[in-house]
Amino acid sequence: MSDVNKVVLAYSGGLDTSVILKWLQDTYQCEVVTFTADLGQGEELDPAREKALKFGIKPENIFIDDLREEFVRDFVFPMFRANTVYEGEYLLGTSIARPLISKRQIEIARQTGADAVSHGATGKGNDQVRFELGYYALMPNVKVIAPWREWDLLSREKLLKYAEDAGISIDMKHRQGGAPYSMDANLLHISYEGRHLENPAAEAEESMWRWTVSPEAAPDAAEYLDLEFENGDLVSINGKRMKAHELLATLNQVGGKHGVGRLDLVENRYVGMKSRGCYETPGGTILLKAHRAIESVTLDREVAHLKDDIMPRYASTIYNGYWWAPERLAMQALIDQTQKTVNGWVRIKLYKGNVIVVSRDSKTDSLFDPTIATFEDDQGAYDQKDAHGFIRLNALRLRIAENARNKRG
Amino acid sequence: MSDVNKVVLAYSGGLDTSVILKWLQDTYQCEVVTFTADLGQGEELDPAREKALKFGIKPENIFIDDLREEFVRDFVFPMFRANTVYEGEYLLGTSIARPLISKRQIEIARQTGADAVSHGATGKGNDQVRFELGYYALMPNVKVIAPWREWDLLSREKLLKYAEDAGISIDMKHRQGGAPYSMDANLLHISYEGRHLENPAAEAEESMWRWTVSPEAAPDAAEYLDLEFENGDLVSINGKRMKAHELLATLNQVGGKHGVGRLDLVENRYVGMKSRGCYETPGGTILLKAHRAIESVTLDREVAHLKDDIMPRYASTIYNGYWWAPERLAMQALIDQTQKTVNGWVRIKLYKGNVIVVSRDSKTDSLFDPTIATFEDDQGAYDQKDAHGFIRLNALRLRIAENARNKRG
Amino acid sequence: MSDVNKVVLAYSGGLDTSVILKWLQDTYQCEVVTFTADLGQGEELDPAREKALKFGIKPENIFIDDLREEFVRDFVFPMFRANTVYEGEYLLGTSIARPLISKRQIEIARQTGADAVSHGATGKGNDQVRFELGYYALMPNVKVIAPWREWDLLSREKLLKYAEDAGISIDMKHRQGGAPYSMDANLLHISYEGRHLENPAAEAEESMWRWTVSPEAAPDAAEYLDLEFENGDLVSINGKRMKAHELLATLNQVGGKHGVGRLDLVENRYVGMKSRGCYETPGGTILLKAHRAIESVTLDREVAHLKDDIMPRYASTIYNGYWWAPERLAMQALIDQTQKTVNGWVRIKLYKGNVIVVSRDSKTDSLFDPTIATFEDDQGAYDQKDAHGFIRLNALRLRIAENARNKRG
Amino acid sequence: MSDVNKVVLAYSGGLDTSVILKWLQDTYQCEVVTFTADLGQGEELDPAREKALKFGIKPENIFIDDLREEFVRDFVFPMFRANTVYEGEYLLGTSIARPLISKRQIEIARQTGADAVSHGATGKGNDQVRFELGYYALMPNVKVIAPWREWDLLSREKLLKYAEDAGISIDMKHRQGGAPYSMDANLLHISYEGRHLENPAAEAEESMWRWTVSPEAAPDAAEYLDLEFENGDLVSINGKRMKAHELLATLNQVGGKHGVGRLDLVENRYVGMKSRGCYETPGGTILLKAHRAIESVTLDREVAHLKDDIMPRYASTIYNGYWWAPERLAMQALIDQTQKTVNGWVRIKLYKGNVIVVSRDSKTDSLFDPTIATFEDDQGAYDQKDAHGFIRLNALRLRIAENARNKRG
Repeated sequence: MSDVNKVVLAYSGGLDTSVILKWLQDTYQCEVVTFTADLGQGEELDPAREKALKFGIKPENIFIDDLREEFVRDFVFPMFRANTVYEGEYLLGTSIARPLISKRQIEIARQTGADAVSHGATGKGNDQVRFELGYYALMPNVKVIAPWREWDLLSREKLLKYAEDAGISIDMKHRQGGAPYSMDANLLHISYEGRHLENPAAEAEESMWRWTVSPEAAPDAAEYLDLEFENGDLVSINGKRMKAHELLATLNQVGGKHGVGRLDLVENRYVGMKSRGCYETPGGTILLKAHRAIESVTLDREVAHLKDDIMPRYASTIYNGYWWAPERLAMQALIDQTQKTVNGWVRIKLYKGNVIVVSRDSKTDSLFDPTIATFEDDQGAYDQKDAHGFIRLNALRLRIAENARNKRG
Repeated sequence: MSDVNKVVLAYSGGLDTSVILKWLQDTYQCEVVTFTADLGQGEELDPAREKALKFGIKPENIFIDDLREEFVRDFVFPMFRANTVYEGEYLLGTSIARPLISKRQIEIARQTGADAVSHGATGKGNDQVRFELGYYALMPNVKVIAPWREWDLLSREKLLKYAEDAGISIDMKHRQGGAPYSMDANLLHISYEGRHLENPAAEAEESMWRWTVSPEAAPDAAEYLDLEFENGDLVSINGKRMKAHELLATLNQVGGKHGVGRLDLVENRYVGMKSRGCYETPGGTILLKAHRAIESVTLDREVAHLKDDIMPRYASTIYNGYWWAPERLAMQALIDQTQKTVNGWVRIKLYKGNVIVVSRDSKTDSLFDPTIATFEDDQGAYDQKDAHGFIRLNALRLRIAENARNKRG
Repeated sequence: MSDVNKVVLAYSGGLDTSVILKWLQDTYQCEVVTFTADLGQGEELDPAREKALKFGIKPENIFIDDLREEFVRDFVFPMFRANTVYEGEYLLGTSIARPLISKRQIEIARQTGADAVSHGATGKGNDQVRFELGYYALMPNVKVIAPWREWDLLSREKLLKYAEDAGISIDMKHRQGGAPYSMDANLLHISYEGRHLENPAAEAEESMWRWTVSPEAAPDAAEYLDLEFENGDLVSINGKRMKAHELLATLNQVGGKHGVGRLDLVENRYVGMKSRGCYETPGGTILLKAHRAIESVTLDREVAHLKDDIMPRYASTIYNGYWWAPERLAMQALIDQTQKTVNGWVRIKLYKGNVIVVSRDSKTDSLFDPTIATFEDDQGAYDQKDAHGFIRLNALRLRIAENARNKRG
Repeated sequence: MSDVNKVVLAYSGGLDTSVILKWLQDTYQCEVVTFTADLGQGEELDPAREKALKFGIKPENIFIDDLREEFVRDFVFPMFRANTVYEGEYLLGTSIARPLISKRQIEIARQTGADAVSHGATGKGNDQVRFELGYYALMPNVKVIAPWREWDLLSREKLLKYAEDAGISIDMKHRQGGAPYSMDANLLHISYEGRHLENPAAEAEESMWRWTVSPEAAPDAAEYLDLEFENGDLVSINGKRMKAHELLATLNQVGGKHGVGRLDLVENRYVGMKSRGCYETPGGTILLKAHRAIESVTLDREVAHLKDDIMPRYASTIYNGYWWAPERLAMQALIDQTQKTVNGWVRIKLYKGNVIVVSRDSKTDSLFDPTIATFEDDQGAYDQKDAHGFIRLNALRLRIAENARNKRG
């Protein structure tokens, strides 16, 4: 066990990180700095301050930051420029929040002169990797304390016992009915793992979902949204310009109302195992669909295909925790270069879980040329005879090969 | 104009290909062989025979083939093994039918001793390319007649006039209201282009859609389907084994009833322009979702990612018409190699346009190991301490780089 | 044949483009502007002016531009940042010159108010595509005249006859011994095609090569070069800073002396056929090797691999003529982003055709950390125990799969 | 430390693995099985038996296998079908031997009922990963002992002391002059790491190289080789058919004589650090060049490009130790599918370090069609006018975009 003077803990104020806070004090006899971020998870953060104070944390060592705007503007939106989806389904709601937490945690470590950082992620998941790759990338010699990999509180019982002994108040829900879902929430999504989700053959309980109504319970009337994009980023909804995080919050609210954005899947973790997860990403689901639609009229074909080809790698890079790595920056340079012309609007219809693109256009950057695509007389804009040569030369290698095959018999 | 003795025409029996039939006789003074394929488009094919006879086609020169089983088994299913989607949205319903038509048309050309083939695709679209690349790949020196690129009947009026003069009966719908949608149908989908769809800013008319009800009009009660897969292919629905095309037809019927599979998009054609298309692919939409789900429990992570990385290229290859090209065969070899373990079942819920995966598993090939993934005590199946070294070595290059940056200041 | 007022011809002053000049005047009755570029091909350009005047070209319509610096700085060097090689061998010497010629030709067209451009590339090769894609990308409605695809002078005899009739002086070499090699030269390379190279089973004649001595004829003493790079570009040789084109000219001179850079291959043209070509690229061969070497110590692993993965596509993009297309710009953004740390030096040994990297380092950006890599005691810089967890987690998916296989038996 | 009954050690008979043998006996008090493989490293293997006996290994527990044919036929040749090169330079000579050793070691473990395996690779390198990924993939619950990560003999002095105490004879070279190069040899290559190579700015000593003469010392007369390929594999040299390993041994001998195949580079290890290595791969260097040449006339363009695109990933997969992983098998299926037509011959010239392709052809599978590629009159085999349409449609998206840009001004 290494010698630690001061550690910055990513502190939610919940039971687990409260136990960790106490355990750090007990185990390392070190000063603890708590860092609590508002990423739009929808929880009160003030209790975190009170609890920290109760543990004897000095007021100047308690950091509670509203990172919502930075989160959406500098992390979520850049990621959506790439139409990023992991393994065909997952919108990376947890993955994209970790690098911002790491960054801010390291900033606080520098500011407070801390030599260590700590987090509450378990030793089986992706989040430990994402947090720690961020720490190491930004402060390569920082000491990292991952209590779940060190302590002996691996069973729920031991953890609750430790909390009780430490005078940490335990909610009723934690006492009853076994472990709760493992959840993570921020402006992009809320996720669920564990409990009976650990059986991929079992259907998720309706009572689990928190942000969205079920499609069955959604309104009977559809709702239309007009979304406007500039340089690939959403800038207004129904004509109202808002900040990045306000836009996403609005989409979440409307999407959740219409039962949009539930997902139930088995994914491959970076640490080598498969895991079942359920996600609610109402705003992100709308945003992805709309972004693809605005790109469909403003992006060159080969650029769009290049993006599609590189996307899975970009997604894995983020999923695996390499946001701060140079390969992510290199891919981002490519992606951002392509978004200069992604300007225009998309009209979306929401209805009982469906996100339907009904129309889209761009006044400034449309590459859709109706005079060429038309089935009507195009006045010579396109010479159909050109297709003959196009096909003949594209077929040439196939013809030569088949002729060669025939010659050999 | 080249000298043609006998030409095999891909003949639907509709107005356009009837005009082409007549035009070929008039223009090339050659014998015409008609080939009409049943790909599950849902139209009577008998009238095609009668019409052909009226044009003086010899009975032995009239080919009407039921290709439904071959179509789904050897073309649609192999393509779905790759989770193939073009430009993030389009399920390639038209693209995948063309290579089979080309193949059969060339077989008939060999059988009847024809020296030419012809089709009714326009000079602006992808289908001319797909047909002709198929012809050339399989019979490299065949003569190809593409009437739409040769004749002067480019306006609707001229075409109707020519039909009238030739005594071709014209449906009322063709006489009124301008050109109809340009449509294509087979067991995988039905597509719509043209008319007011030529304006991407205009919403599609509800009256256009033919195979699916709108989500609004779908039943209020959800329906569950149990789908079973073997080697990556669907083999049964709700426990009932059927032939490939029967399975797809069943999915179409159920999906259509629940408003599943509508799509409205702008796509990039191989010939260089953007085009607006609407598609109904009820069965394919279900199949894609379910196939991803069964892969999620049976496919190795790196194999899944490799497939995701190569998929857009495989999709473009098919979209552009290169089904018979060696690069498609090479990619197919990779894809098929991966499907040996894709065995198991998926439970799907259909409700008002939604296709929701609720559970999935594989008795024989699951790679989901609950003893490892569990949040509960795993009895040592996984050593959380291993994650420390995993992260440290994955972070090493990032740490070295940041240390180097800091050293230079 | 379209109506042309004024045409800008890419004019070398040689026999073929002189015939074209005359043919344009005869056929289109239009004003001709000649454009002759110095790309370092090593030929006198003054005769081009005299010849143009003889054809009655107005002095203000004769453009002779020294583009050597721009060529190497803005085209060759950016391409080498990607370690660009087509089909594993070809360094794209011809491909990379075409976009600059197109660009300048279109600038001249704008300046002189011309409505057409013309070039001397044949209808079978890649260069017609490269020139014309450049023209169309930069001036989309320009008229393009490609005489080799239009005229009837396809045989050598007819061409010489036309030249004779037009009073164009014909060198002795053109009169004798059939057609010469088809050659192209600029600061990056000289290429040879045609004649007996059309048989891939025939060895190239020693007398063909012009820029390099054979390895056998090269000096018996090796020569060392110290090359310095900044942001991925070569900036000095043996401590002497020079302009981009001077650096490449120096490498060509030294490389050629040592028999470096000959290549004999069969390549796949964009127009669908295979073609045999021989190339001399002495400077480029050295540059590629040295650039890889400096990257080897300054580039992050994943960035290097990302570049390697994207390189073949970037190479094809340039080979096929899409320098001015948006997908090239997107890839360039990625590549350039990676080169910020590519600073340092490489020591190269040249000897009878060999380019041998003997050492390399970077004072500012080395990621080579000898304290970690050492076989000696590393004082704890690297904890060998970390490898255990690294391997265990990387092996996890393989272990789960094999255990699952064994369980099913 | 886990409980071990019987361990199979990859035993070279050299100093290090002899110390390991003794250390395993001392530390684990377990039965040791030694496995020594002949992979063509060019060392006597009989001493390994004698030494093992001296350590008290039972005769039935000593395995000395000649794996040369299997190595080249089933590992080296399949890899060369992909033109595999890691980071643009390294031919993977060490990487490709490890999976075979792992496989045989596991076979012996099953045969002898051993529950553990062990190897002599250090905790900093790639080989530990390659060995162990192989072990785990083939016998997922095997115990793996990696002495270099466990023991305290990390310094050279301690190791020699331990050897001395154990009565292990130590060569003079080991006593003097510090640590030797870390070397690895098999039929594909010999590698060098460590010592003063740890400084990338230092030139390698001429005395280090063992398999090749320097180019300077190579014969003054060039030598030609005729190489014949079937399905992408070399089958004969100068008309003489031999087994796979005999062919490679022959190429090594001739190549070494002519100074072919030296390489000096800095590479990125999987464990996260950069490392300087020198390699001699005379036969492999010739084979790669020749294989590319025979592919150049027999492989379709798009297939060749697909292979080039996937190659770096295939190379990393092998480099990182994932030969037995399913993603390698999937890529191999693609690669092998492409090699069916790779039949023909290549003529190579070797001269003082140079490997020069002078000609190549295929009687059965050439796709080089001289009647089409010719600069002479092709009798209509290719219609140059086709190029017009080909270019126009390929340019269409660029023209539309530029027109759109101009319209907006």
